[in-house]
Amino acid sequence: MENKNNLAVKIVFDGFKSNLKRATKLLNELTEKDLLQEIVIFKNTGHYVLGHLIAIHDNMLPLLGLGDSLYPELADVFIKNPDKSELQKPSITHLRIQWDEVHQVLLTKLASLTTEQWFEKHTAVSDEDFVKEPQRNRLNVVLSRGNHLSYHIGQIILLKN
Amino acid sequence: MENKNNLAVKIVFDGFKSNLKRATKLLNELTEKDLLQEIVIFKNTGHYVLGHLIAIHDNMLPLLGLGDSLYPELADVFIKNPDKSELQKPSITHLRIQWDEVHQVLLTKLASLTTEQWFEKHTAVSDEDFVKEPQRNRLNVVLSRGNHLSYHIGQIILLKN
Repeated sequence: MENKNNLAVKIVFDGFKSNLKRATKLLNELTEKDLLQEIVIFKNTGHYVLGHLIAIHDNMLPLLGLGDSLYPELADVFIKNPDKSELQKPSITHLRIQWDEVHQVLLTKLASLTTEQWFEKHTAVSDEDFVKEPQRNRLNVVLSRGNHLSYHIGQIILLKN
Repeated sequence: MENKNNLAVKIVFDGFKSNLKRATKLLNELTEKDLLQEIVIFKNTGHYVLGHLIAIHDNMLPLLGLGDSLYPELADVFIKNPDKSELQKPSITHLRIQWDEVHQVLLTKLASLTTEQWFEKHTAVSDEDFVKEPQRNRLNVVLSRGNHLSYHIGQIILLKN
């Protein structure tokens, strides 16, 4: 039975890592010029989506109780505001470095969690609510962030020629 | 521990259902004219993505050992061949009906599985390989199909004005 618990965690965590690997490969294949394009006219650029994914994944650190965000300033540009805001975006070169840094820290911390810890509550749910909704745990956050990542991979792949 | 398995199944299955709900809502908002457009010039149309998702989800029935596909003929048009093949696509009106039918059957069958059954092997893995790779189970298939669905939701949402 313990084995099966590990199995569910392994499946969800492997799924997230596999999405991340795919996204990293794709982003490495896209040039700066590709990423500066709008995916569809009047919609987000690859530049914005790149920053958005870093900001969302960086925010997983506090949400999962694994430490502070490395670059909390990204949330303003890439989560709270849309692509066409007046806020200055960090360069793509800079974001590519942050992409690697955030994921290195996040994956290391996730890999260190025990099975029990994967089933503990995330920090955006209260103790009382967690009793009623025990599915609001770390496993759930990683699953839903994996889905979010897939959603945006489906978009940035359209920038490939 | 048994409790944790139930929870993991709930999280993965709820995640899939939530993606499906989002996709259904989005497809209902898109007109036939919207779906006939290419998402990006020279790339897939919404029409093709709609058929592709039905074909992939219909194929989950045999893959999960839950019965035969309802519309196995869709695989040829929407999986084995690309959008711009010479094969005739069923109409969007027809596909919308198949979308509902496939998902009604699939969700009903998934809902009837016990926790143990979610951890059993899918039909594309041999008994010998399953001993070595116990993560190749139904739970894994549903998780990865949920990711695949998110990927395409990220694309068809670009057809919305």
